[in-house]
Amino acid sequence: MFKQLTQRIIKGRTDWQFIAISDLGSNTARLVILRSIPGYAYRLEDELREVVRLREGMTDGRLSDAAMERGLSTLDLFKRFCGAVGVDMVIPTATSAVRDATNGSEFVQRVEQEVGWKLRVLSGEREAHYGVIGALNEVPITNGYVLDIGGGSAQLSEVRDGSYRRGDSVRLGALALTERFVKSDPPKSSELKVLQSEIEKQLQTFTWAKPSEGWKLVGLGGTIRNLAKIESKRQNYPLENLHGFALTGKSVKESIDLFDELPLKQRKSIPGLSDDRADIIGAGARVVAAFMDYLKVDELTISENGLREGIFFEQFWRDQPVPIADDVRRFSVLNMARIYQYQPDHAAHVRMLCQRLFADLKTLHQYGPQELELLEAAALLHDLGTIINYNDHHKHSQMLIISSGLAGYTPRETAIISLLARYHRKGTPSWEGFQSLMQDGDEILLTHLAAILRMAEFLERGRSGIVSDIEAAWDDDSVTITLLSDRTPAVELWDAERNAAPLFETAFGRTVHLQLGHSTQG
Amino acid sequence: MFKQLTQRIIKGRTDWQFIAISDLGSNTARLVILRSIPGYAYRLEDELREVVRLREGMTDGRLSDAAMERGLSTLDLFKRFCGAVGVDMVIPTATSAVRDATNGSEFVQRVEQEVGWKLRVLSGEREAHYGVIGALNEVPITNGYVLDIGGGSAQLSEVRDGSYRRGDSVRLGALALTERFVKSDPPKSSELKVLQSEIEKQLQTFTWAKPSEGWKLVGLGGTIRNLAKIESKRQNYPLENLHGFALTGKSVKESIDLFDELPLKQRKSIPGLSDDRADIIGAGARVVAAFMDYLKVDELTISENGLREGIFFEQFWRDQPVPIADDVRRFSVLNMARIYQYQPDHAAHVRMLCQRLFADLKTLHQYGPQELELLEAAALLHDLGTIINYNDHHKHSQMLIISSGLAGYTPRETAIISLLARYHRKGTPSWEGFQSLMQDGDEILLTHLAAILRMAEFLERGRSGIVSDIEAAWDDDSVTITLLSDRTPAVELWDAERNAAPLFETAFGRTVHLQLGHSTQG
Repeated sequence: MFKQLTQRIIKGRTDWQFIAISDLGSNTARLVILRSIPGYAYRLEDELREVVRLREGMTDGRLSDAAMERGLSTLDLFKRFCGAVGVDMVIPTATSAVRDATNGSEFVQRVEQEVGWKLRVLSGEREAHYGVIGALNEVPITNGYVLDIGGGSAQLSEVRDGSYRRGDSVRLGALALTERFVKSDPPKSSELKVLQSEIEKQLQTFTWAKPSEGWKLVGLGGTIRNLAKIESKRQNYPLENLHGFALTGKSVKESIDLFDELPLKQRKSIPGLSDDRADIIGAGARVVAAFMDYLKVDELTISENGLREGIFFEQFWRDQPVPIADDVRRFSVLNMARIYQYQPDHAAHVRMLCQRLFADLKTLHQYGPQELELLEAAALLHDLGTIINYNDHHKHSQMLIISSGLAGYTPRETAIISLLARYHRKGTPSWEGFQSLMQDGDEILLTHLAAILRMAEFLERGRSGIVSDIEAAWDDDSVTITLLSDRTPAVELWDAERNAAPLFETAFGRTVHLQLGHSTQG
Repeated sequence: MFKQLTQRIIKGRTDWQFIAISDLGSNTARLVILRSIPGYAYRLEDELREVVRLREGMTDGRLSDAAMERGLSTLDLFKRFCGAVGVDMVIPTATSAVRDATNGSEFVQRVEQEVGWKLRVLSGEREAHYGVIGALNEVPITNGYVLDIGGGSAQLSEVRDGSYRRGDSVRLGALALTERFVKSDPPKSSELKVLQSEIEKQLQTFTWAKPSEGWKLVGLGGTIRNLAKIESKRQNYPLENLHGFALTGKSVKESIDLFDELPLKQRKSIPGLSDDRADIIGAGARVVAAFMDYLKVDELTISENGLREGIFFEQFWRDQPVPIADDVRRFSVLNMARIYQYQPDHAAHVRMLCQRLFADLKTLHQYGPQELELLEAAALLHDLGTIINYNDHHKHSQMLIISSGLAGYTPRETAIISLLARYHRKGTPSWEGFQSLMQDGDEILLTHLAAILRMAEFLERGRSGIVSDIEAAWDDDSVTITLLSDRTPAVELWDAERNAAPLFETAFGRTVHLQLGHSTQG
């Protein structure tokens, strides 16, 4: 087993590729570099960010000379950086500022001549499309809308049957609106009135977008992420990642009131708000609120993925007809497991034993496929923390899950999976620190699932699959777990008895008997 | 660079060996499995622990039948576990209970026949020796004593010129003494009196051990670790590892008073005290206090390493004349860097740039070799956190250092190194959370060193060594840093200017100029 581990951990796959995606927006230029093996796993390796404000001074419809110079020198830096670190592929893109500018093609030409990059200038529709690909790889929805607010433009897209259906871009970017309408600090109410009516006017162009019962709204981009970050600070939100965070219309309106009231200097000290966004967040937040009102939704689900990730996924899922994970939740668990060099054989065996216990004790616990899925995810991820340290690795596993988050899962589900990992070896399962995400009955759920995972883990203590299968039977007083094995699983019996049985007895209110034997049903 | 990274991170070295060390003591049996490449790096991979109480009922000098059975079945489990996980080498040892028992050799025979392991029964002197090897690989001392308190026996050794000189074992183990003298709960003062005089009597056998000015006392074993753990809880100690923790005689005596007063049930709830040691800790603590009085030392430095690690290091350093790292501090930094798959070229380049800045600005900061060593360690470790996540990797680096600790460094030094890693990219250096370890002037020290590290890091932003060397010159108003490079280090200039210069200006009270150029001295 350790020998396999050596091979896997230390050798692993060597066919990783490094893909750089550069995105030149109206406000910000970014370069992200991702390490990936298409369809297998990916992770962020590096990131550069520069506030370029390409749209600044574009009042006559032309990129100003100064803005062009800033854009060129930033792209030049990005290119040099890609050269220095060594990447396999670069995809340089530009969005609304270059797209809208009457001298945009001149800029593209200069980039090609002076930097040596062929900029892909994305149409508004294409920009919307990539945003949706990013979002659907994180927040799987069947029917709904995706809203992406950038510096120059905002995109709204419709998702039907899990796919991009259509999308449009309007000039409702946070920077563009601020430049046009907001001259005072704090903004005058007369300015805000004009701003608001411009937003509402442009909204009317989305004739195809109607409020629809049960449709979800997913939100992307820096403005929306920042509004969510501010709300997460207000709530003392216990996860570090905003995957699937629900931002309410009420919260957005509270933030707007705050932005309107405070002058820039004080606005900058709002917890969660980025310094270099404090001047344009007010206009952006009004756009968010207006879209939510227009679509009559009370909340918006955050996607941390957006345009850049959409472009990346087009490469990552290139062997699929549509560049979206078949099962986002399943893939996000596997991706995390692979990135942190899990032991697939051990993890899969623990998962199988969990499935058996879950099924055989169903009448006792009454849970269904949703709870089973959380248990299975935790079974795959429980040992990840060993990459940090064997000691306390259960705590490290929890930290890794909390720190990266799990795309596709709700915050509550992510918390449960992390807590199962936390309690897979020892301790009394507790929601401490995560109570704000807890629902009725979740304490009992956590205890039941942790008891099953811990039993499965200790029945696979030697990580050699020695307990090939198990069966659990129960009566009013006891649960009997029969271990099927070709050899005597002495370590597993000993350790499960000492370390797993007590929690199991608490969870199921019955004494536990572990026995060796042949199938009672066969 | 990324290609090199792939090769290194993902492929790495494949010549790892797995060594299992089993240690059958009077109270506890343990199996540890370490992954290592001799002389290169090692880490703990797994651990089994069972309270065997082999000495229980040994009043007639013989291991009882029940105790033998417990020992045999535990070793059998350990052996099965080694087989299941697959190790390259097993070293099974036994200490005082088997050594002292009149039927010890019978037990050894049975282990060979029934388990198939040839137990190495360590003499008291050999046990002392291995403890010293473990300790000196963690707490480097030139002259001093090492005290190891186990369940059956206690070993005191003398270290001279950094090597083991001599050592002896006496029957002052925590379990053995408790069994002989403590019958009541809480202990009667008459029992404690007899216990105390027995300890003092046996102490007199150490005729070669004398109080010596400036000699340090290092402490090992579960009893001592537990006393330190209790004290660390009292202090709200900010590190997670007890490497180099200073346990004072005063603290030990406070703990003794508490143990004497509380009945077992309440004693178990003392923060930091292990449940299964609560019954024997009182006797053990008295032994510690008596040795400290005898040697006239006010404090004892904790080594987390002990016997098992000593046995391991005999293998790990087998190519050296003495199985102790030449430079414990240097090796512990390298070991951590290797375990967490650092990028040696980038780390070494950042370190070199740090050395340059440190030397060229010496008149300004006035620090010497000790401070430089901390800076160099942080330069090697600053990026370790990327193994967890690129985002916030500076925070992850700090967490990894705090979580594993750094052998050979004092708690304060470990905190400084971790804080330098924490602030290598951004943020205003602060001791928050670690104030209890801070000395006068340490805030300024942290700011100076963090400023240098951050400058070096951003001058190596592309991780390609493009800035081949630097020189720093200064006057009353400014510091000028000249970058030597064959190509234009545009990314580095840009990023150092934005992200490193501000802290540097704060630290050195001068404006910073970055310029390209040839050596001003050449």
